[in-house]
Amino acid sequence: LEVVLADGSVITTGTRARKTSAGYDLTHLFIGSEGTLGVITELTLRLRPIPEAISAAVCSFPTTQDAVATAIAVVQAGVPVARCELLDATSMRAVNAHAQLEHAEAPTLFLEFHGSPGGVEEDARYVEELARENGGGDFEWSVRAEDRNRLWRARHNAYFAALGLRPGCRAISTDVCVPVSELAATIDATVADLATLPFPAPLLGHVADGNFHVILLIDPGEPDDRSAAEAVYGRMVERAIAAGGTCTGEHGVGLGKRRALAVEAGPAVGVMRAVKQALDPDDLFNPGKVLPEPQLAST
Amino acid sequence: LEVVLADGSVITTGTRARKTSAGYDLTHLFIGSEGTLGVITELTLRLRPIPEAISAAVCSFPTTQDAVATAIAVVQAGVPVARCELLDATSMRAVNAHAQLEHAEAPTLFLEFHGSPGGVEEDARYVEELARENGGGDFEWSVRAEDRNRLWRARHNAYFAALGLRPGCRAISTDVCVPVSELAATIDATVADLATLPFPAPLLGHVADGNFHVILLIDPGEPDDRSAAEAVYGRMVERAIAAGGTCTGEHGVGLGKRRALAVEAGPAVGVMRAVKQALDPDDLFNPGKVLPEPQLAST
Repeated sequence: LEVVLADGSVITTGTRARKTSAGYDLTHLFIGSEGTLGVITELTLRLRPIPEAISAAVCSFPTTQDAVATAIAVVQAGVPVARCELLDATSMRAVNAHAQLEHAEAPTLFLEFHGSPGGVEEDARYVEELARENGGGDFEWSVRAEDRNRLWRARHNAYFAALGLRPGCRAISTDVCVPVSELAATIDATVADLATLPFPAPLLGHVADGNFHVILLIDPGEPDDRSAAEAVYGRMVERAIAAGGTCTGEHGVGLGKRRALAVEAGPAVGVMRAVKQALDPDDLFNPGKVLPEPQLAST
Repeated sequence: LEVVLADGSVITTGTRARKTSAGYDLTHLFIGSEGTLGVITELTLRLRPIPEAISAAVCSFPTTQDAVATAIAVVQAGVPVARCELLDATSMRAVNAHAQLEHAEAPTLFLEFHGSPGGVEEDARYVEELARENGGGDFEWSVRAEDRNRLWRARHNAYFAALGLRPGCRAISTDVCVPVSELAATIDATVADLATLPFPAPLLGHVADGNFHVILLIDPGEPDDRSAAEAVYGRMVERAIAAGGTCTGEHGVGLGKRRALAVEAGPAVGVMRAVKQALDPDDLFNPGKVLPEPQLAST
């Protein structure tokens, strides 16, 4: 990274070497600091070669639990799955309507495998077996790039598809991440909680990482919607932290999750605050973001 | 991590979730801080499942350059090689003598592949082809665990084997890491430099990462040995930094590489110093380690 600091000086973190143990890891410190420690003005990414073979598959399941159980089995079997995405029945309904597709409107895993032609096929057959043991239907396979892209387009447009479930609604995206061993129980409890909501709330996730999202489709003119959404999201976060997970897998803290960060990180927030004070003593960068007020941190 | 801080308080960094974006990444900040920011009292590691199939292979080459060219081709082809270790001819001579083995005393790659049975075989055949294009000899294959372990034992004992090359010597381990694209030129220059030394200096490395080591076998009673070793090591570090790499891939800075860190990280050292000052204001933890004195940092 190239980063501009509060005093106007410019630093570079890391080198082009794949690994280093030269001094403190400033790259990871600035990544995810949400602009509160400096302004990242340049970044160098590591490219990975395109694998020799890629195959994608879609498989639907009787219940969300069955799909999650399959994802967990895949992770625990050590199959090197490149992507493993869950869409629940509501998400699949949204995706079908949005893109005129005809997927089963049932909990579905989207999978992708990378490697050599034979390796990719073996991995996929193995996962197909794991899916079948958990009630999964037939795999819909795609090896050609255009077919794979069509398959993944459904997943990529899921957010916009969700908006179509309730015209005029506003979406509140949620984001939690739990240990994979806690994923099944956490999703079960979340699904039960979502069933009480007066509006649609599709669930989808990067389940091999234990990371999932619910899209809460509230009517902005309906105060009860917002309070119900906030309550259900609050319980999602509590559940994730109680399961040994995190209040945010990838969306960040911003303003909304400062209290959750205080609960999750406890006294480590004091270290974050000391780092912030050391690097931005005049609080120039994104003041008020990420770090909870000291009184919040002590609760 | 569980870390005890300078004020005696105890923090935990991270959760058991596989990913998080909740606040600053303190885990990576403490990892590699070499005990200068706090005392790590507990750490939780992520376990990875044992793959369904593992195969290992050994292949020798006419020159070190040929072996390195093969390793680079493997990385650039995107073959998911699990281990890729280079031992030069001197290292192989040491290993053979130490463990009564009969490997060719030529530059050698030790490789390991993980995956499904068919995938592992395909990956290995592909790498065998890449090796042959670079003058590599026949692959010596091991699939059974006991054969693989015997193969890897040679690599694991390389340090002790090296000591046997010069009875009574002391070993100075070196460690640099460069971008894979600069590896061939960097190793060429290093090999030429080593040829001028009055003592044996086996070279070995984790070449798929661009990381390599030379073991400098000096006579502790011979002052010229030490000065020659320090000079050659200094040039290795200069070369690595000039190539866009790092003065240390995995061994760390300690006392000996503080000046190199100043050169490599430049003004970023100021940020490291500010973090150190914020977390350990009384300089209780490993004083003098890692961070160069301010006058060094400005050179």
